[in-house]
Amino acid sequence: MSINHLEQFTITRNRTEDICAPLEIEDYVVQPIIDVSPPKWHLAHSTWFFEQFILVNHAKDYEIFHEDFAFLFNSYYNNMGERSQRHHRGFMTRPTVSHVLEYRKYVTKKMQELIQDNPSQEVVDLVEIGIRHEQQHQELLVYDIKYILGSQPTHPSLGNYFDLKAEAHQQEWIKVPGGLYNIGYQGDAFCFDNELPVHKQYVQDFSISTKLITSGEYLEFINAGGYKNFDLWHEEGWHFINNNNIETPLYWQQQDGKWFCYTYNGLEELNRDIPVMHVSLFEAYAYAEWKGMRLPTEFEWEIASDKFNWGQVWEWTNSAYLPYPGFTKVEGALGEYNGKFMVNQKVLRGSSVATPPGHERPTYRNFFGAGNRWMFAGFRLVKK
Amino acid sequence: MSINHLEQFTITRNRTEDICAPLEIEDYVVQPIIDVSPPKWHLAHSTWFFEQFILVNHAKDYEIFHEDFAFLFNSYYNNMGERSQRHHRGFMTRPTVSHVLEYRKYVTKKMQELIQDNPSQEVVDLVEIGIRHEQQHQELLVYDIKYILGSQPTHPSLGNYFDLKAEAHQQEWIKVPGGLYNIGYQGDAFCFDNELPVHKQYVQDFSISTKLITSGEYLEFINAGGYKNFDLWHEEGWHFINNNNIETPLYWQQQDGKWFCYTYNGLEELNRDIPVMHVSLFEAYAYAEWKGMRLPTEFEWEIASDKFNWGQVWEWTNSAYLPYPGFTKVEGALGEYNGKFMVNQKVLRGSSVATPPGHERPTYRNFFGAGNRWMFAGFRLVKK
Amino acid sequence: MSINHLEQFTITRNRTEDICAPLEIEDYVVQPIIDVSPPKWHLAHSTWFFEQFILVNHAKDYEIFHEDFAFLFNSYYNNMGERSQRHHRGFMTRPTVSHVLEYRKYVTKKMQELIQDNPSQEVVDLVEIGIRHEQQHQELLVYDIKYILGSQPTHPSLGNYFDLKAEAHQQEWIKVPGGLYNIGYQGDAFCFDNELPVHKQYVQDFSISTKLITSGEYLEFINAGGYKNFDLWHEEGWHFINNNNIETPLYWQQQDGKWFCYTYNGLEELNRDIPVMHVSLFEAYAYAEWKGMRLPTEFEWEIASDKFNWGQVWEWTNSAYLPYPGFTKVEGALGEYNGKFMVNQKVLRGSSVATPPGHERPTYRNFFGAGNRWMFAGFRLVKK
Amino acid sequence: MSINHLEQFTITRNRTEDICAPLEIEDYVVQPIIDVSPPKWHLAHSTWFFEQFILVNHAKDYEIFHEDFAFLFNSYYNNMGERSQRHHRGFMTRPTVSHVLEYRKYVTKKMQELIQDNPSQEVVDLVEIGIRHEQQHQELLVYDIKYILGSQPTHPSLGNYFDLKAEAHQQEWIKVPGGLYNIGYQGDAFCFDNELPVHKQYVQDFSISTKLITSGEYLEFINAGGYKNFDLWHEEGWHFINNNNIETPLYWQQQDGKWFCYTYNGLEELNRDIPVMHVSLFEAYAYAEWKGMRLPTEFEWEIASDKFNWGQVWEWTNSAYLPYPGFTKVEGALGEYNGKFMVNQKVLRGSSVATPPGHERPTYRNFFGAGNRWMFAGFRLVKK
Repeated sequence: MSINHLEQFTITRNRTEDICAPLEIEDYVVQPIIDVSPPKWHLAHSTWFFEQFILVNHAKDYEIFHEDFAFLFNSYYNNMGERSQRHHRGFMTRPTVSHVLEYRKYVTKKMQELIQDNPSQEVVDLVEIGIRHEQQHQELLVYDIKYILGSQPTHPSLGNYFDLKAEAHQQEWIKVPGGLYNIGYQGDAFCFDNELPVHKQYVQDFSISTKLITSGEYLEFINAGGYKNFDLWHEEGWHFINNNNIETPLYWQQQDGKWFCYTYNGLEELNRDIPVMHVSLFEAYAYAEWKGMRLPTEFEWEIASDKFNWGQVWEWTNSAYLPYPGFTKVEGALGEYNGKFMVNQKVLRGSSVATPPGHERPTYRNFFGAGNRWMFAGFRLVKK
Repeated sequence: MSINHLEQFTITRNRTEDICAPLEIEDYVVQPIIDVSPPKWHLAHSTWFFEQFILVNHAKDYEIFHEDFAFLFNSYYNNMGERSQRHHRGFMTRPTVSHVLEYRKYVTKKMQELIQDNPSQEVVDLVEIGIRHEQQHQELLVYDIKYILGSQPTHPSLGNYFDLKAEAHQQEWIKVPGGLYNIGYQGDAFCFDNELPVHKQYVQDFSISTKLITSGEYLEFINAGGYKNFDLWHEEGWHFINNNNIETPLYWQQQDGKWFCYTYNGLEELNRDIPVMHVSLFEAYAYAEWKGMRLPTEFEWEIASDKFNWGQVWEWTNSAYLPYPGFTKVEGALGEYNGKFMVNQKVLRGSSVATPPGHERPTYRNFFGAGNRWMFAGFRLVKK
Repeated sequence: MSINHLEQFTITRNRTEDICAPLEIEDYVVQPIIDVSPPKWHLAHSTWFFEQFILVNHAKDYEIFHEDFAFLFNSYYNNMGERSQRHHRGFMTRPTVSHVLEYRKYVTKKMQELIQDNPSQEVVDLVEIGIRHEQQHQELLVYDIKYILGSQPTHPSLGNYFDLKAEAHQQEWIKVPGGLYNIGYQGDAFCFDNELPVHKQYVQDFSISTKLITSGEYLEFINAGGYKNFDLWHEEGWHFINNNNIETPLYWQQQDGKWFCYTYNGLEELNRDIPVMHVSLFEAYAYAEWKGMRLPTEFEWEIASDKFNWGQVWEWTNSAYLPYPGFTKVEGALGEYNGKFMVNQKVLRGSSVATPPGHERPTYRNFFGAGNRWMFAGFRLVKK
Repeated sequence: MSINHLEQFTITRNRTEDICAPLEIEDYVVQPIIDVSPPKWHLAHSTWFFEQFILVNHAKDYEIFHEDFAFLFNSYYNNMGERSQRHHRGFMTRPTVSHVLEYRKYVTKKMQELIQDNPSQEVVDLVEIGIRHEQQHQELLVYDIKYILGSQPTHPSLGNYFDLKAEAHQQEWIKVPGGLYNIGYQGDAFCFDNELPVHKQYVQDFSISTKLITSGEYLEFINAGGYKNFDLWHEEGWHFINNNNIETPLYWQQQDGKWFCYTYNGLEELNRDIPVMHVSLFEAYAYAEWKGMRLPTEFEWEIASDKFNWGQVWEWTNSAYLPYPGFTKVEGALGEYNGKFMVNQKVLRGSSVATPPGHERPTYRNFFGAGNRWMFAGFRLVKK
C-alpha cells in the first residue's frame, strides 16, 4: 500500500482526535437525544471498525485490545454480533475516555504496521472504507458536540471551531434545460455504493437559485407566521412542529425582542447573512411553499451543481433516499452499510463546513430523516 | 348535471350503506388502533364532505343538519376549522348510528335536488370529487370492518363479503425494454391531482412477474426464518417487526402446527393459493431480498401493467410518494387533499377486491406508510 | 334460602338494568379512559361472577351460557384463568348488548332456581357476596356512564338521574375527645373482609366539620390561585395536576367568565351549594392546606360519623388503605377480593347518592388511587 | 457555635468527597434511571443547600460562587425558583467535576468562617439541617454509584466499599405484648419533623423475627416459583414485576445455573448468608405471603427494635408514610422537606451499612415508593 494511504490513514486518525481536543472529559459521555452519540463512543466505534473488519482477519497474530469493546462499540452492524442498545450509550461511563484513547493508539499503530506491510487489494479497499467511515463519524462528532454543548444551560464556548460565512454573492436563477442526464459517480476514485450505478434520469426544464436561503430570509418566514399556517406544511410536518413545540430552527431563541443563536462561541446574536441551518425537511418544505417555489430533486441538484457554489451546509432535496436502478449491496457485514437505510429518509446533497476534506462530491448522497435538525442542513429553492 | 351524475351519486351513497349492512350497532363505534376509524365516523364524514364543500356554499337556503357535526366529522381538513382529535373517534357514542343515518338521508336528498337542478361546472366538479372521496372511504370501511371484527376474540363472521380468488395462472416473467415512457393519466375522464402532469420517465430494461406472491410462497419465507434474519430487512423494518412482535402477516395465527387466517368468514385454515396480503412494505421488501429480487418502482409497474392481471390486492412498489414534476396543489381546502401527504409514504399501485368500481386505473397512486398492514396490500417481484 | 334472599337478588339484578336503561346501544361499548369500563362489560361481568363462582360449581347439570364469556368478562380474578386485557375492553363489540342481556336473563333464571332450592350455607354466603359485588358495579356503572356521556362534545342529557342536594345546614365543629376506640364492623349482618377484625385504635382529640366543602367554597380556592401554589401540594400531586393540565374538578369548565359543570342533565351552570365532587385526593389535600386544616383519618371519620350527616358523596380520608391488625384474606379466588389492593390506595368513607341501598355503613372502607376523580368523591375538614 | 459543630460540618463535607474518591470523572456525570442522580449533582446540590439557605442570608457580604448554580442544582425546593428538570440531570456536562469541587471548597470555607463566628441559633439550626441533608445525600450517593457502575456491561470494581456481613445469629421470635405505646422521638438531640410529635399507638400482641431474610432464603422463594404465582402479589406488584420483567432482586443474575450478584467488587457469586437487599416492597410482601407471615408495621418495628439487631439494610414495613397526629410542617422553603412526600410511599425503618454515622435512630422514618429497588432495603417478618 502506498505511502499515500498511510498518510491519509494517519491524518484521519489525528483529525478525529483534534475535533475532540477542546472538550472536557464530561462532554465525552452524554447522549442528550437518541440521535446524538457520546463523543467517546465515536472515538471507540471508528476504532472498533478497523479492529473488527481488518485487524482481526488480516493482521498476523493480532491480539484484540479488550474483549468487551467489540460488544460495546458496535453500532448497527448486526452481522458482527449483538449490539449494545443505542439509547444506553449515554450511560456508559466505562471504559473511560483515557482507556478509549489507549485503544485508539493501539489500533492505529497496528493498522499503520499493516498498511506498511504490502497488504492485499482486499485490505487496501477495506482501509479506504474505514477511512471514509471514520470521516463520516468526524462530521457527526461536530454535530453531536454542538448539541451536547448547546444543551448546557450555561452555553459554553469552544472558540474558533466550524463557522459559516455570509452568502455574500448576488442571488440569481440558473436555467437548466430538460433532457436525459447521466446521474451517479463517473470518476475512478472512491465513491459509496449508493452513488452507483451511473444511470440516466429524464428531467424537465428548471430554474435553480445560486444562493442558499439565509437566516435573515428565514426570519421573515417566522415573522410572517409561517409556523402557524398549516397550509404550508406536510400533514406529518404539522404534527412534528406542534408535538415538539417547534417555532424556530434549532438553537435559535428570542430574548427581549432580539434573536440569538447558539454557536460554538456560545450564545450569539443571530447572523442574518449566513445560510439558515438546523432546519428539518419539513421546515425547508414549508418555507418553499410560502415562497411559491419548491426544493430541488437530487437529480436536478446534481445536474446544476457545477453552476453554483456549495459546501457551507448540506442541502435538503425533495428526493427520497432510494436505490439507483441496478443497485446491489455489498456481500457481508459491510453490505449493511447503505441499503438498509433506504426507506423513509430524504437525500441531502453538497457538503458542509464540517465535512472532512475529500467528501465533497456532487454525486455524494447524504440522507437524514425529515425531522432531523441537529446536522448542518439548509436549502436552496427551485422555481415551480 | 346529467342523469348519469345523479345515478352515480345515488349508487355511491347506497353502496356505502350496503357495506355496513351486516354490522351490529356496536361494531360502528370502536377504534381499536389509530388507523382504523369507527364505521359510524366514515358514514358521517363522507356526508359532512358533501354538506361542507357543496351544500353550504351552493344549495339555496340550505340549513345545516346539526351544528356539532361540522366539528365532529371533519378529518384533516384543517382549513375548515378545528378538528376533533383523531384518536378520540372511538369514544364518540353520540350522535348515534341512527342519527348519523338520518344525517345521511337528509344530505343525500338535498344533494340529489341540487344535482337535478342544473348546477354550475364548479358544483359538478365538486360532486365528482365528493363521490371519489366517499368511494375512497368505502374501501377504508372494508379494511376497518375487518380489523374491528378481527380484533374480537370470538372471530365473528360476516358471510360472503370481499374474498380473494386463487392466483391460478402460470407464473411468467415479462421483459420490458428500457427507454423513455410517458407516465401519468392521459385520458379525459376523472383522475386525481397526484396522477398529473403527464411526464417522461427513463427506465432501464426490467423483467416483472405476471403473478402475485401467494400465501403459500410467503409461508416458505416464514419457515425459512425470514423474520429472524436481519440481513433481509431495512434497519427501520427490523425494529418495526421486533418492537411489534411481528412474525407473520396480520390476521395469521398458528394453532397446533396448522396455519389459520382471520377472514370475513371467521377464522379459516390458510388458503395458500391466494395472494398474500396484510403485509407491510418492510415485509414485502424482506421477502424480495430473500428471493434475490426486488419490488418494482411505480413507473415500472405502470408501464408493464397492461401485460399482467391485477386487481385483487394493492401492490407495494419501492417508490416513495412524491409529486410528479410540475405538480400543483389545488387552491383552497380541497388543496389539502394529496400534496400534504407527500413525505414518508410509499406508493401502491393497482386496486383490490374492495376497490369501488371506477377506481381501477393503472395510473392511480395509492399510498400508505411502510408499516401499515390493515389494508389489502400484497406484492409482485422484479428481477434484479 | 329465605324469600328475602331471592327478593334481594332479583331486585339487585333489575336495578343494574334500570341504571343502564336510559343509554343508547352505542354508550354501552366505549372505554374513554382505562378506569372506565364499558357498561356492557359491567352487565356481563357481574353475571359472569354468579355463573363462575356459584352456578358452575353448585347448580346441578348447569350448562354454561357461552364458553367465550368466561374469558371475556373476567376482570382481575387471575385464579379463574387468563383475563382479557383491561385496556382492550373498549374494542369489544361482540358479544352485542342484546346477547349480553340474554346472558343476564339466563343466569338470573338459573340463580333464582338455585336460591329457591334450599341451598347450602356456602351457596347462601356466595350469593350474598355476588349481590354485594354486583352492587359495587352498579355504583361504578353510574360513574362510568357519567364519564362516557361527559366525554361527548355534545353533552347529552339523561334527565333525572343521580343528583346531589345542597348542603343546607349550618357548618359546625364537633369536638371528639381522644382515647381508645373500637374500629371495624361489630354488627351481625354482612360486611367485607377489610372491615375486620374489630380492633382498638388510639386517637387524639380532634374537631371535625359537620358540613362537606361545597362547590362554591372550592371555587374560592381556585380563584385564590390554589392550583398555582406548589406550597399547598404533595410533590406527586403537583406533578399530577401539571402533567394533566388540571385546574378545576373534573367536569368543570369556564365559558365567558361563567362556571359550568357537566351533570346528567347536560352542561349546567355550576351549583355552588352542593358538595364539591370529582376531586382527587391531591386536590382535597391542597384545599385543606390552604385552609390551614387537614383531612380526617379513616378512624376519626368512623368515630365521629354518628355526629354528622353523610351519604351524598364519598369522603376522602388521609388514611392509606391497609389491612386491619389480624386481617386474613379468604382462601381461593374470592380471596383476591380486597387484600391485593392494599398498597398505594387511599381510604374513602361514607357513601354517595349512587351507592346502592344497603351499602351505607360507617365502617365501609372504599378505596381509590390518590389521582382518581371520576367517582363521586368530596371531603370534609378537621382542624389541625 | 461550638467546636463540635464545626468539626461535624467539616467531617461531613470530607466524607461526601471520600465516598466519591474511587470514581472516574465519567462516573460523575450519568443518570441511567430517573431515580439515580449523577454523583456530580449530589456534590453540587448539597453545597447549594448551604449557600442558598445559609450563606446568602446570613453570611456578611457573601458573594455567590456562580449565578447559574442556584438554578442548576436546586432539586425540588420549588420555593427557591424554577428548578432544572430532573430527568435532564444526566445531560449536564458543565459545570465540570473540577468546577463543582471548587464550588465545594469555596462554600465549605465560607461556612467554616460563619460557624466559627458565633452564629445565631437560627443559623445553628440551619447548619444542623444542612449537615443532615448532606448526610442523606451521602447515602443516596452510595446507592447511585452502585447503580451507575452496575449498569456497566464491564462490571467495574471499587474494591472495599460498603459490604454486608452474614446474619450469623440464630433466628428467634420475640413476643411483644399488645397495648398503648409511645411512638416518636423522645430524646433531646436532632430528629426530623416527621418523627414528631410523640404520640400513642395501640398495637396488638405480635411476634417479630430477630433475623433478616437472607439471600439464601429468598432464593428458595424464587426456586419455588414465587415470581410466577399471582396469589402472592399485590395487584399493582403483579403488574410491576411483569411490566419490568422482574424475576430476581436487582443486581442478581444466573449464569450456567449459578447465581451471581453485582457488588462493589464486581460480579460475584451470590452470598447466601447476608441479608437479601435490593428488593421492592412488592417482593418483600410476596415473600411474606408465601411464608404465611407478614411485614411489621412501623410502630411494631419501633417498639421491638431494642430487642433485635438492625443496621445492615433498611427494613420495609407495611406502613404508609403519613404524618403523625399533630404533625406540622416547618414554615418556608425548608417546610417542603418532608410533608410533601406523604402520599403513596412506604416507611422503612432501621439503617444500612451506607447510613452516615448519627442517622441510626429507632424512630427514624425513611421512605421510598413500593417499586424502588436501588437502595439498600431488605426485610424481617412478623407472624400473622
